[in-house]
Amino acid sequence: MTDSVDPATRARAVQAARGAAPFDLLLAGGTVVDVATGELRAADVGIVGPLIASVHAPGARGDAARVLDVAGRWIAPGFIDSHLHYESSLMTPADYASVVVPAGTTTCVWDPHELANVLGLAGVRWAVEASRHLPLRTLVAAPSCVPSAPGLELAGAEIGPAEMAEMLSWPEVVGVAEVMDMPGVLRGTPHMQGIVGAGLAAGKNVNGHARGLLDADLQAYATAGVTSDHEITATEDFLQKLRAGLTVELRGSHDQVLPGAVAALATLPLLPPNLVLATDDVFPDELLAKGGLRDTIARVIARGLSPIAAIRLATLHAAMRLKRDDLGLVAPGRRADLVVLSDLATVRVDRVLVGGKLVAEAGALLAPPPRRADAPTDTMKLLPQPTAAFRLRVRGVQDGRARLRRILGARFVSWGEIEVEIRDGVATPPPGHAVLTLIHRHGRAPATPRTCLTDGWGEMRGAIATTIAHDSHNLLVLGGTAEDMAAAANAVIAAGGGMAVAAGGLVTALLPLPIAGLLAETPPAETAERFARLRQAADAVCDWLPPYRVFRGITGISLACNAGPHLTDLGLTDGSTGQVYDPAEPLMA
Amino acid sequence: MTDSVDPATRARAVQAARGAAPFDLLLAGGTVVDVATGELRAADVGIVGPLIASVHAPGARGDAARVLDVAGRWIAPGFIDSHLHYESSLMTPADYASVVVPAGTTTCVWDPHELANVLGLAGVRWAVEASRHLPLRTLVAAPSCVPSAPGLELAGAEIGPAEMAEMLSWPEVVGVAEVMDMPGVLRGTPHMQGIVGAGLAAGKNVNGHARGLLDADLQAYATAGVTSDHEITATEDFLQKLRAGLTVELRGSHDQVLPGAVAALATLPLLPPNLVLATDDVFPDELLAKGGLRDTIARVIARGLSPIAAIRLATLHAAMRLKRDDLGLVAPGRRADLVVLSDLATVRVDRVLVGGKLVAEAGALLAPPPRRADAPTDTMKLLPQPTAAFRLRVRGVQDGRARLRRILGARFVSWGEIEVEIRDGVATPPPGHAVLTLIHRHGRAPATPRTCLTDGWGEMRGAIATTIAHDSHNLLVLGGTAEDMAAAANAVIAAGGGMAVAAGGLVTALLPLPIAGLLAETPPAETAERFARLRQAADAVCDWLPPYRVFRGITGISLACNAGPHLTDLGLTDGSTGQVYDPAEPLMA
Repeated sequence: MTDSVDPATRARAVQAARGAAPFDLLLAGGTVVDVATGELRAADVGIVGPLIASVHAPGARGDAARVLDVAGRWIAPGFIDSHLHYESSLMTPADYASVVVPAGTTTCVWDPHELANVLGLAGVRWAVEASRHLPLRTLVAAPSCVPSAPGLELAGAEIGPAEMAEMLSWPEVVGVAEVMDMPGVLRGTPHMQGIVGAGLAAGKNVNGHARGLLDADLQAYATAGVTSDHEITATEDFLQKLRAGLTVELRGSHDQVLPGAVAALATLPLLPPNLVLATDDVFPDELLAKGGLRDTIARVIARGLSPIAAIRLATLHAAMRLKRDDLGLVAPGRRADLVVLSDLATVRVDRVLVGGKLVAEAGALLAPPPRRADAPTDTMKLLPQPTAAFRLRVRGVQDGRARLRRILGARFVSWGEIEVEIRDGVATPPPGHAVLTLIHRHGRAPATPRTCLTDGWGEMRGAIATTIAHDSHNLLVLGGTAEDMAAAANAVIAAGGGMAVAAGGLVTALLPLPIAGLLAETPPAETAERFARLRQAADAVCDWLPPYRVFRGITGISLACNAGPHLTDLGLTDGSTGQVYDPAEPLMA
Repeated sequence: MTDSVDPATRARAVQAARGAAPFDLLLAGGTVVDVATGELRAADVGIVGPLIASVHAPGARGDAARVLDVAGRWIAPGFIDSHLHYESSLMTPADYASVVVPAGTTTCVWDPHELANVLGLAGVRWAVEASRHLPLRTLVAAPSCVPSAPGLELAGAEIGPAEMAEMLSWPEVVGVAEVMDMPGVLRGTPHMQGIVGAGLAAGKNVNGHARGLLDADLQAYATAGVTSDHEITATEDFLQKLRAGLTVELRGSHDQVLPGAVAALATLPLLPPNLVLATDDVFPDELLAKGGLRDTIARVIARGLSPIAAIRLATLHAAMRLKRDDLGLVAPGRRADLVVLSDLATVRVDRVLVGGKLVAEAGALLAPPPRRADAPTDTMKLLPQPTAAFRLRVRGVQDGRARLRRILGARFVSWGEIEVEIRDGVATPPPGHAVLTLIHRHGRAPATPRTCLTDGWGEMRGAIATTIAHDSHNLLVLGGTAEDMAAAANAVIAAGGGMAVAAGGLVTALLPLPIAGLLAETPPAETAERFARLRQAADAVCDWLPPYRVFRGITGISLACNAGPHLTDLGLTDGSTGQVYDPAEPLMA
């Protein structure tokens, strides 16, 4: 329930609180953001070791080894990000910490879902190890849906009830991560009952992903034992989920739902204690520019929630959800994880303390954590691909015409058919269409390319290749010509994973992600810059059309757990029917 | 974190929630008290096994093995009493449950502090065993201060850090019970550091007793690792303790603090989630008449808190304090511990369900739990006493006068001296004084009577004897003459413990408490009636003068942990100085 504290240090803190010993550090002259009572109170904060020893009247004490003047500043508890994937930032835990800790996040719950899809339990184990000794308390949740759509895709590993129980036995693992297989939970498959049951048996949080669930299905999902959700889409499901007692992890990455959610809160007689904040997925450039949860809190305030209530969601409520009595408050006996704010309403972070130590000032860590040498690289089990791998070779037709299945749409997809012209066994992409190829890259099956047509991305003036391809993270290539697709794909393969853009047969941008094909080894600023350049290069080869056609949508082309057509290493799949089609197989006339 | 649920039953509940199977029970036509959002919502509640499977629109479902019409009624979560001592009710767990469950209490945290002082770990073990299979979920906290004042009294046992760790290793024990030795915590004695440390190491709640603590001492007490308090005396310490992040267990037994507390809440911008309700100590007759926590909730509402907020304190907030995701809400997946109210503001309880079963209706359990045969009786290790045992025999003076220490006051005591006349070695009680005798009754030391004078109780017209004598529960006798004192004492000894009143040399009332000398074997109504009769008999021999001289004060005469003079089996003690005096030793002139 709490981080352990050396008894001698605690004893010293007790004596310091009484006035019988000096503090190690005193924050003097500030205003405490008391998220328990909702008050802003002028108070000094005395710290001993990692603990807040005393919160007392301004000026009452001066005996401290060091005094930090925080006059005109607010002292809030360290922010707790209730749900996120480091992988979305393309950063290792150490790099991620170096970005978000200066912005006030001191604790987070990490679901290393993408690492697990590539590396299985070894990936989660690495997530645990790489999270040690950081200024960011990283609580790891055990990925529950690896692969996201069993039978529809081949990921790098499988996680079943036994693997889940194994991970939950690790003390660093705080719960079952978002349970995405909603149909499995609702139908009560032995697989999902086993995974949720392992979480219940371990007495750890079972976290949810209740996308679109309402009414009877929502009740059933909660009854199964899932106790949270971050997939809020509108005011209606926001309220239904709060009423169902789920801990709602309102997320910053879906800005469009925040106004309705804040307006709905104003209609409730009491602020629900089962409401917390989360970032979920943030790209590296945005993370560097805005700071993660800090930005979410600021936007919730901008939408009309009081600063203290907004900060409460991200501190005390989150600590209660985590059953941590030592976090979430500026109060004696709690961990001295503190954020000093120079502006409350905009959540401008001045300094950050973690475990009683000043760790960040003016937007930067004072001592960045060391880089690790044990990151899992060498996960690209795929040889360079010939151009032919990216041609749509229609089965059993040498020359002539055939009807094929195709994907209609980009972000919101549906099934379609189209007649194509075939020469030397290869279909010519019709006008307005792009080619999609997906190749297994985990070495667990032959690397047979699966290729289909889509009208969702318009006509491509080049190609985009990526090993970030949810959720199995095989190699996905989207392009106009086989030459560009091969160029982009082979750049990614040579880099050991990553993203690349090609045009005119040449690579125009490359973002190497050699750690599991998901994370960069470069420093955050460089990663962000390379990512921004890659997006620019992608802009040059594709016309976006938000919200339907967005960069983020590319990595979701293979997200087989969702309804409608998605391309995986097994073929064209449908998450709602569980069917897999060979995209090269002509349809009957 | 949760009570276990048979996976097959949970699977059936999921299917029922979806509409693919019928409910076992449906509460139809009621209004749900949604303590998460603060709403009152018309909704039906479907139950499967011990679980709430679905909370849905009125009339949406009718398929249930049984339908309970709750039209015009409110459906609230079962009440959770965050801190109490069954011993104050003089009832066994089964009897206690039969009284409070019909009044809506479905979960409580029991500190069997008195049993532990008589029986040590065996008493706590019995508390755990006797709490099984009741309609009242009894979560046992491990008594931390046995005896309450080490060195000043001899209880039936001692509990140190090793015994605390042993109790905390039992899964039924949810935490360290109220840490009463505040000076030990503040000074940092190895004994109290060890006891609090055992709780922190076990990751279980360390509950407090922070009587009178404010400012620096309060900060130090919280920093030591204690996370709750129920000893609220005024608005100032109420607010200070909330601000210190302690979970404040506002208690019904101290009605005088409720108006100030509720008024203070109205001044806070947010309702603190670290506020819960508790009964602590309730006498049997009052418990039967008012129903325990139900009455506390009603009084908090009467003082001005909204019914939903008041019920939230006693349900969801308490569940969060206990880190129980399965309690505290009328929501899917939670335990179907439900209270059906016929009036919200006065908390009139109509029916009670526990674990999905209707267990109480119209103020009575439908099936009272069976009585146990293993209660610990035979704890009165004391032979009948001669009249001489109750005479104040002054040391070294046969005839003449001597100055002796005496107790000034009754409930609020201070040290005094008085000159007495001595004949044949025995002091004559001066006018306005009564005699106090305390005799060790646990067989761990010779049964040497300790006798002194007190002006706090006026002149007694008889005697009162009791084995409820906080906290060591030795035999305490207060009276005017040695003959009356012997009569009352010997009645109690013969009963194996209890309370008795004597006048004119005859016993006028007897309340046998043969279980540990603390609890009755009689049914609750009989116990309450006997207790009421005993109080009437006591009224005839003593003039009360509230708040200074009250019946409850008698059992506190021996409460050695408190400051000022208290009589124990070792002598006249002072909790603030740690000194023990022989009350029979004359003072120098």
